[in-house]
Amino acid sequence: MSAKKNTRPARAKTAAARAHFPKIDKITYEGPESDNPLAFRHYDPTEEFDGKPLSEHLRFSVAYWHSFCGTGADPFGRGTIVRKWDEGKDEVSIAKNRMDAAFEFFQKIQSPFWAFHDRDIAPEGRTLAQSHKNLDALVAHAKKLQKATGVKLLWGTANLFGNPRYMSGAATNPDAHVFAYAAAQVKKAMEVTQELGGENYVFWGGREGYETLLNTDLKREQEHLARFLHMAVDHAKAIGFKGQFLIEPKPKEPTKHQYDFDVASGIAFLRTFGLEKHFKFNIETNHATLAGHTFSHEIEVAAAQGMLGSIDANAGDTLLGWDTDQFNTDIRELTLAMVSILRAGGLGSGGLNFDAKLRRQSIDLEDLFHAHIGGMDAYALAFKIARDILADGQLDGFVADRYASFDEGYGKEIETGKATFKSLEKLVLTKLGEPKPRSGKQELLENLITSYIHG
Amino acid sequence: MSAKKNTRPARAKTAAARAHFPKIDKITYEGPESDNPLAFRHYDPTEEFDGKPLSEHLRFSVAYWHSFCGTGADPFGRGTIVRKWDEGKDEVSIAKNRMDAAFEFFQKIQSPFWAFHDRDIAPEGRTLAQSHKNLDALVAHAKKLQKATGVKLLWGTANLFGNPRYMSGAATNPDAHVFAYAAAQVKKAMEVTQELGGENYVFWGGREGYETLLNTDLKREQEHLARFLHMAVDHAKAIGFKGQFLIEPKPKEPTKHQYDFDVASGIAFLRTFGLEKHFKFNIETNHATLAGHTFSHEIEVAAAQGMLGSIDANAGDTLLGWDTDQFNTDIRELTLAMVSILRAGGLGSGGLNFDAKLRRQSIDLEDLFHAHIGGMDAYALAFKIARDILADGQLDGFVADRYASFDEGYGKEIETGKATFKSLEKLVLTKLGEPKPRSGKQELLENLITSYIHG
Amino acid sequence: MSAKKNTRPARAKTAAARAHFPKIDKITYEGPESDNPLAFRHYDPTEEFDGKPLSEHLRFSVAYWHSFCGTGADPFGRGTIVRKWDEGKDEVSIAKNRMDAAFEFFQKIQSPFWAFHDRDIAPEGRTLAQSHKNLDALVAHAKKLQKATGVKLLWGTANLFGNPRYMSGAATNPDAHVFAYAAAQVKKAMEVTQELGGENYVFWGGREGYETLLNTDLKREQEHLARFLHMAVDHAKAIGFKGQFLIEPKPKEPTKHQYDFDVASGIAFLRTFGLEKHFKFNIETNHATLAGHTFSHEIEVAAAQGMLGSIDANAGDTLLGWDTDQFNTDIRELTLAMVSILRAGGLGSGGLNFDAKLRRQSIDLEDLFHAHIGGMDAYALAFKIARDILADGQLDGFVADRYASFDEGYGKEIETGKATFKSLEKLVLTKLGEPKPRSGKQELLENLITSYIHG
Amino acid sequence: MSAKKNTRPARAKTAAARAHFPKIDKITYEGPESDNPLAFRHYDPTEEFDGKPLSEHLRFSVAYWHSFCGTGADPFGRGTIVRKWDEGKDEVSIAKNRMDAAFEFFQKIQSPFWAFHDRDIAPEGRTLAQSHKNLDALVAHAKKLQKATGVKLLWGTANLFGNPRYMSGAATNPDAHVFAYAAAQVKKAMEVTQELGGENYVFWGGREGYETLLNTDLKREQEHLARFLHMAVDHAKAIGFKGQFLIEPKPKEPTKHQYDFDVASGIAFLRTFGLEKHFKFNIETNHATLAGHTFSHEIEVAAAQGMLGSIDANAGDTLLGWDTDQFNTDIRELTLAMVSILRAGGLGSGGLNFDAKLRRQSIDLEDLFHAHIGGMDAYALAFKIARDILADGQLDGFVADRYASFDEGYGKEIETGKATFKSLEKLVLTKLGEPKPRSGKQELLENLITSYIHG
Repeated sequence: MSAKKNTRPARAKTAAARAHFPKIDKITYEGPESDNPLAFRHYDPTEEFDGKPLSEHLRFSVAYWHSFCGTGADPFGRGTIVRKWDEGKDEVSIAKNRMDAAFEFFQKIQSPFWAFHDRDIAPEGRTLAQSHKNLDALVAHAKKLQKATGVKLLWGTANLFGNPRYMSGAATNPDAHVFAYAAAQVKKAMEVTQELGGENYVFWGGREGYETLLNTDLKREQEHLARFLHMAVDHAKAIGFKGQFLIEPKPKEPTKHQYDFDVASGIAFLRTFGLEKHFKFNIETNHATLAGHTFSHEIEVAAAQGMLGSIDANAGDTLLGWDTDQFNTDIRELTLAMVSILRAGGLGSGGLNFDAKLRRQSIDLEDLFHAHIGGMDAYALAFKIARDILADGQLDGFVADRYASFDEGYGKEIETGKATFKSLEKLVLTKLGEPKPRSGKQELLENLITSYIHG
Repeated sequence: MSAKKNTRPARAKTAAARAHFPKIDKITYEGPESDNPLAFRHYDPTEEFDGKPLSEHLRFSVAYWHSFCGTGADPFGRGTIVRKWDEGKDEVSIAKNRMDAAFEFFQKIQSPFWAFHDRDIAPEGRTLAQSHKNLDALVAHAKKLQKATGVKLLWGTANLFGNPRYMSGAATNPDAHVFAYAAAQVKKAMEVTQELGGENYVFWGGREGYETLLNTDLKREQEHLARFLHMAVDHAKAIGFKGQFLIEPKPKEPTKHQYDFDVASGIAFLRTFGLEKHFKFNIETNHATLAGHTFSHEIEVAAAQGMLGSIDANAGDTLLGWDTDQFNTDIRELTLAMVSILRAGGLGSGGLNFDAKLRRQSIDLEDLFHAHIGGMDAYALAFKIARDILADGQLDGFVADRYASFDEGYGKEIETGKATFKSLEKLVLTKLGEPKPRSGKQELLENLITSYIHG
Repeated sequence: MSAKKNTRPARAKTAAARAHFPKIDKITYEGPESDNPLAFRHYDPTEEFDGKPLSEHLRFSVAYWHSFCGTGADPFGRGTIVRKWDEGKDEVSIAKNRMDAAFEFFQKIQSPFWAFHDRDIAPEGRTLAQSHKNLDALVAHAKKLQKATGVKLLWGTANLFGNPRYMSGAATNPDAHVFAYAAAQVKKAMEVTQELGGENYVFWGGREGYETLLNTDLKREQEHLARFLHMAVDHAKAIGFKGQFLIEPKPKEPTKHQYDFDVASGIAFLRTFGLEKHFKFNIETNHATLAGHTFSHEIEVAAAQGMLGSIDANAGDTLLGWDTDQFNTDIRELTLAMVSILRAGGLGSGGLNFDAKLRRQSIDLEDLFHAHIGGMDAYALAFKIARDILADGQLDGFVADRYASFDEGYGKEIETGKATFKSLEKLVLTKLGEPKPRSGKQELLENLITSYIHG
Repeated sequence: MSAKKNTRPARAKTAAARAHFPKIDKITYEGPESDNPLAFRHYDPTEEFDGKPLSEHLRFSVAYWHSFCGTGADPFGRGTIVRKWDEGKDEVSIAKNRMDAAFEFFQKIQSPFWAFHDRDIAPEGRTLAQSHKNLDALVAHAKKLQKATGVKLLWGTANLFGNPRYMSGAATNPDAHVFAYAAAQVKKAMEVTQELGGENYVFWGGREGYETLLNTDLKREQEHLARFLHMAVDHAKAIGFKGQFLIEPKPKEPTKHQYDFDVASGIAFLRTFGLEKHFKFNIETNHATLAGHTFSHEIEVAAAQGMLGSIDANAGDTLLGWDTDQFNTDIRELTLAMVSILRAGGLGSGGLNFDAKLRRQSIDLEDLFHAHIGGMDAYALAFKIARDILADGQLDGFVADRYASFDEGYGKEIETGKATFKSLEKLVLTKLGEPKPRSGKQELLENLITSYIHG
């Protein structure tokens, strides 16, 4: 997650300007044959599967920071994207304008959810009190817009990485003062998430890690992070917040190393500090690949522990070494991910949040629609193919059969804890002898997947 | 870890051939000024630190597989290294010859320890019973040689990756038959390790992972691996083996993904399955970098949990994507690692095992000495510098001071669990205000390290 | 390219055994609806495009080394794949058996071409003379089989990396003796390629590079390599060989650095030494990604210089750092590659050679068919989609339009060399002013590609 | 190279503030025993080697952009570094203030050279004419400061990547208008470089590449880039600029792919378009490693063609995938680089430019000194060790001996073009037989290097 604010000088604004996307109507489903670039080809929100519309299966969400605060800036150049909504008489007015645009977009793109960091939606003030006040103003505005549009909040979070005060971490900052400040900020962010009916609350530790071990007490920092999360759990209880807590792993960037490197690191951390019952994972595709894993891998690791929470839906470029946060149109990758998600019973209170940004060169207003249409269509198509794969049963049947030797006899005794090294050695020496190798059939299975996708 | 056997046709052999390194005497310490390439410049095994000779601080170990079974083969070419000891009237005789050479080398290089896989030291038979028998013969031989030379066993392990039967894993194989076979093999390897007084037993899951998720039940495989390790714990208890169990993480290679990806993954796994009390980590430098971590990072992560066990001392090439297993002469990297190891209280029953191999082109018998001399000198020098760094106290003082705000007041309340989000918010709003940024001083600290190393 | 020989003890063999794939008939096209895993779903060799059958457009080739010499071995374990054809009364008989099996496979899989290294098809002798003799025997056998089956030779090459003599390079070996040996070997390999009607001859410098700069004279090695290639050009002229010479770039593995790192490095080398007229490139997908490039990138770079020669058709795993040589079923990647290839006017005398190997666990004879069927179908489907994309013209139209400002006015003057810095500065200062930014439309174009692929 | 501007509101400023580093005196050499963090331990600018002071051997340069425009910002957070010199009544005044600070620093750190992009030193105006005017004002200021301090300009360059107009490239932009604008900007940058006596002019193509091949005509873009460079060559001739032109390769970042990926790509490009006589290379350490090469490799590749021009002295983190631009204190890496540079005869008109930036957390004014002291000391020490290595001659002697077989007999005939495949085959068949393998001695040589560094 990354946020960039884009505040430009205020100018007068008439009521007429309030339609921020005047040339673009609501995007509708036209089917695979359509060549209208501003229509869905695969995503029909109303199409029913198992008695539930597709919109409830996929639970798409738009990421406020990228789509409404992003400017196309990169480390070598300033922003390229200029939006008319970044105008207004003061920062709070601009923020409201931007939010109006955002909700207009959510509706037009038919996204049932949105997600935000506190500092995306409201400008940071000169004091924490002022920041709280600004946030309250925008939360009130959001509440109104949510009611008016029916768009819901998938999750909220606090930006603990953009402000210079967090340069050395928030909960893992060597300075207790910064820890306290972060605590105050997250407290408020949790409260406004609750106020807006957010179904989850996300922790991404963008600077919870280190730049160099030379100046770092790794153990103490991890203990502080654990204290912080315990306080969050306690505060949720105190205020009656029922949303799901989610850890979002990322291995590195901005820091050299982040403590929640990947799902496995997150599990290690949570279990070490007795937090495992309170958290699930928000898995981002690009973060998975930066950690050296496939998207499916991270889903499977979380699912194996019942800790699959939500998805930050994007794509990286595995030939580049940083977070490119692209919209994902790789149907094969998404199909395999969807197979794993559906097998795990879905995402529960989670959803598919487009934590993806327009390319620096994609400066047209329309590009925001193309990007989301591409991402939503890709997931919708992948969902349908994944359902076919699971319904057909060949793939799962193959896997079940491959492990069948553990379903009975000494295999079952292994699983149930009755076998010992001694009993197994005896078995091999006296009865079993040498195992017979069996093909893993990877190529056959890859062809099978291809046939589902390009049937 | 990787083992390759190198069995060549038998030829007659006279007693005279028994000195396998006739031209090379025991390597001795000559000091930094020496330009004798067959002398130590920094490693004087008898030099005392804190009343203990250097050899007991560093506990060097030679890896049998690389140094006595390695052939220089790579995926694109067959072996280049030809050794005279690979001769004999049958496989067991050759194995004994090789072991004689190994112990001659251990003595001449002044290594107090060695380490092995079962299949390195004894040829695999056509049946498990025959393999056991071969192993017993060589273990008896090793016992005699250990006694004669005083060289001790740092650790033993079982090779569960070279034989085709393990192509789909050992403890995580989909076939219960292979699980049973692996159990029998590890049982025996534990027993011979005990017989030889091994101070540790290592588990490296070279094929405990997957090639493709398409044919894999990740959850079931992880559960099987946990069952396997529980059986190992039980068997150790049954036979009274007191050595330390060590997990050796590696992210990938040979498999696409290995379950013990890094130390954090290992912690997640051990804690998930209630195994954390029985295992520590054997950290390999090259495995750390393949996982995207520094060597120091992996040491710190393990040490933070009291799980730093032993070191597989080598180096990778971070510009290459596979395990190059080189001898490490990077004094800076080793100094930082040593600082972390010493801070953690050392390696206990562990040691510094040279899991490193000669380059494919380094075919001279002498090269084996150059390689180990370089590695041992580098660690010895790093050890001395690291001690100076810790004795000087500047580095640790800087770090302690950086976190001092947690030593008292509300910082201490955070650590002791008395603070809450609410109390901290109040504090910030009413008293603390905005934190004052403080430089991380990375460049200063890097210069400090340079001054210790190039003083 | 990598070759492994697999010679096992000879046994008697009856005529009946000559059908090496008795249970598998010729693979035929059954269309996308077929669920027969041993049928083509997209590759119909007889389907005509522009008056030419698909088999002539795609020019598939089977790689002898992987498919008939590969054993599934990897650096951590010996071979898993056992083939019955590896039997015979002596090495040459085994080699003939293997070749019989290969041609049976070429026919059954409907591959119009094959490709080989000298040492794949014939065992290396104890002397060069003996190696030449063995090779002659197998070439005679191949000639007969080519005639009988109609299968043709796409290219031949010499294995200059497997034998220990080449451990420090062949043409770049520091020892002139090895250079001479390599020259003799390539001379013969070129002659037998000519004898078999090979349409190309490939140079892959698997060990033409270095392990460490410490012992390397990079400049002198590159000059030697250039001398070697000039000799090859001269020898081709001397013997009247008209096949196309191809350089196959690979960045690293087995060596730390290979001189033909990528296509650009190859161009630099060829142009530096006046060789650019005699060589084109054989681009391997997995080598492209190991160099940090996409497959399409390498094709475009070669095509821009008229040096696109042939394709080694496989896939890597961009999350792994070594050559995995998998069969490619990524339709999106192949479609984009095919667009670039077709735009460049095709591959000429080149083809699509499956330099891909079965996974270590894919040990069934049948898996060899599944693998090739998957690869051939994927390329066939990609070819068809790519043709649609080019026929439709939207993509190329977009690109042409994007550069249209260079088609006239001062843009044209820039291209034709009439403009100068001075003239352009004047133009900007007096007339043009600030440019108007224009969206790159990446998301729109990605959606367009998706719509072609998942239409 | 990366530039960030940092314009903050103007405030009144008294003459007294003109000493920008009031608490820090000129950094002087105190020798290796010094523990003064604000002194040189290895760099004594006046120490003579071969009758020339060290300052003339190393030709250090400070990078204006990082050290005087950098703010510590990263993609996830805004700047952390606040400098008093960023104050003034208008942008040009601030720019002058900043430049005063810079020259004070150059003197205090004893750097004989500096380097800049046009937009680092002077604010960009609303029109090109205004930008030219601003630049002229600051160039006049710089000229005065250069004269007053004796600090010289190593090189100038134009920032063609920061402004949104260049989002799709400068010389490779699809819009001829942008090409013209870039031409005008480079014309001016060349002229002011000449005005300031710059000894080189650098071309870094930060956006000369592509984000996606979908919207790119790679061939046409490369041709445009060649046209651009030809115009630059012509303009230099026209104005009598004698400085050396330098290409600075970088593989990626900000773009997905940059045409000057590495030195080899640069050579391919220059030779393809007949530009090779006019350019050398400016090699950056971090760019080398991002391309998958060692720093030494890139130096050797350039040197082999007589195209080694200058060095952008920094370090990357090979475990991270982006340009970290750190100060380099890795003595081993720098020693090996220095050996290659000295062997090549040095850098000529080039120098060692610290294209390195403070870490985001290094916010103290003093940190700028620590950083440069560390970098300068490291290069000075490496220079001395490298001289020792070359003077000693063991390393070069080993290498020369390794290739000695090419110094006479048939080896010499190979080098002189007298040998042919035919003559060499005959030689092998009749006389030479099988080559005798010879150890590459990598471990011995690594130990040798260690002994020089840690003697």
